[in-house]
Amino acid sequence: MAPIRQVPTITNAAARQIVDAAVTAAAAAGQRSAIAVVDAAGQLSAFTRMDGAPPQAIQIAQDKAYTAAGFGMPTGQWHDFMTNDSPLAMGAPGGIARLIPFGGGLPIIIDGHAVGGIGVSGGHWTDDTKVAEAAINAIG
Amino acid sequence: MAPIRQVPTITNAAARQIVDAAVTAAAAAGQRSAIAVVDAAGQLSAFTRMDGAPPQAIQIAQDKAYTAAGFGMPTGQWHDFMTNDSPLAMGAPGGIARLIPFGGGLPIIIDGHAVGGIGVSGGHWTDDTKVAEAAINAIG
Amino acid sequence: MAPIRQVPTITNAAARQIVDAAVTAAAAAGQRSAIAVVDAAGQLSAFTRMDGAPPQAIQIAQDKAYTAAGFGMPTGQWHDFMTNDSPLAMGAPGGIARLIPFGGGLPIIIDGHAVGGIGVSGGHWTDDTKVAEAAINAIG
Amino acid sequence: MAPIRQVPTITNAAARQIVDAAVTAAAAAGQRSAIAVVDAAGQLSAFTRMDGAPPQAIQIAQDKAYTAAGFGMPTGQWHDFMTNDSPLAMGAPGGIARLIPFGGGLPIIIDGHAVGGIGVSGGHWTDDTKVAEAAINAIG
Repeated sequence: MAPIRQVPTITNAAARQIVDAAVTAAAAAGQRSAIAVVDAAGQLSAFTRMDGAPPQAIQIAQDKAYTAAGFGMPTGQWHDFMTNDSPLAMGAPGGIARLIPFGGGLPIIIDGHAVGGIGVSGGHWTDDTKVAEAAINAIG
Repeated sequence: MAPIRQVPTITNAAARQIVDAAVTAAAAAGQRSAIAVVDAAGQLSAFTRMDGAPPQAIQIAQDKAYTAAGFGMPTGQWHDFMTNDSPLAMGAPGGIARLIPFGGGLPIIIDGHAVGGIGVSGGHWTDDTKVAEAAINAIG
Repeated sequence: MAPIRQVPTITNAAARQIVDAAVTAAAAAGQRSAIAVVDAAGQLSAFTRMDGAPPQAIQIAQDKAYTAAGFGMPTGQWHDFMTNDSPLAMGAPGGIARLIPFGGGLPIIIDGHAVGGIGVSGGHWTDDTKVAEAAINAIG
Repeated sequence: MAPIRQVPTITNAAARQIVDAAVTAAAAAGQRSAIAVVDAAGQLSAFTRMDGAPPQAIQIAQDKAYTAAGFGMPTGQWHDFMTNDSPLAMGAPGGIARLIPFGGGLPIIIDGHAVGGIGVSGGHWTDDTKVAEAAINAIG
């Protein structure tokens, strides 16, 4: 059995393109966003904070990207996921480090693999989600 | 394009005046408060803890001020804000570092800019809010 | 007395230009760097991690930028600064949060103000310093 | 045997006077200081950060005050104290949480009791020490 495996992960060049696309989308929508892209290991690859985004957004954007990359699903799906799962709803927020269970984080899926994640923060999570989606689509 | 921008932020002298006004208001109301004022970046500018305020109030006052300054709205508005937003209610407390979603924190708004924040802790949040409001009004 | 003052801080647009210039310089030198630019308050504005940079560099780059911006001097000067100051040498590393006292961090000085800082990590600090210097010079 | 004891601790009113005196002394010396006063339990009573003091000084001032109050001796004495005590020199900085072993922190001694501590940060520790001493003397 081969002792190694290949982990598909987003390149830094692509991560930066996604951040650029997110800035463009946020600016067009009048949003002041912090945007983070993490790799397949959930570790930060690229980040930017537009002027005027609150300091809190620095952490939230990174945690959304980490949440999305690690679990391979949009952060906005956690709410539905937990609605009929009371133990999880009670324990996951606060219990799972850096879990952000509202919108604005998306996994970056390529060829069926979650190769990273993007997190956007600064506006309401519905707005953050739109920015993240636009950024993902831009590199599609 | 100019590489710098000017960020308006509260002076330490004004921050100390706000703390003094809060102490006066708290004493008049029979409250024992911890009071923090942060600048536009959410970083501590002035703080005092009246005798008898619990040690927990040291942190809560600072976090209220940070929450208010960063998001530019009173901490007491988070509850209404989240009532019909179940994902945010599920994730924001605990998920956003140092978020205090009950009353006692107010942004300091001058000429339309959030130039800092005040946080008061030590009593019930309804009382803390009154102290914070009195302090803001005193320097109006 | 006016209750606010204006703090000059680097724009996110300029921060991103500095990061881009650092990536170019690092690539030319065969370095795999993480690069962080913080604003005048020491808060993250822009970040990128080139493929192959170690995960540790994510934190070190940010801490170098924070150290340089806060104290307004290159991180590489801390060693000389402490050589004949035994108490500081004993206490500063470890005692001052996020202090990185070796090269790779530079303040960003414009019109005499420390408006931010850059931190580079991934190579030896002598190499990191060269990348940071090249990035600063590129936007001069 | 009486189940309680009386812990002498500095009042918040006195703590604020010390902070005020420190601001006056720092301004006279051209220093931009963060100043913290803690009570006998080492918990923050009063704090101010003069405009232009680095963000790092927020933490260092508080840790100096905590160090001085807890051990009842000036932070500047730790260096001599450890010089001929290699195990302590090796382990105390970094091993003891929040220990700052260079100047700028002084215990507040009244009637032979360490009733609190002051910490000053923002300049070199020799300057910080002078500000702390002036503040203590002012309320003498």
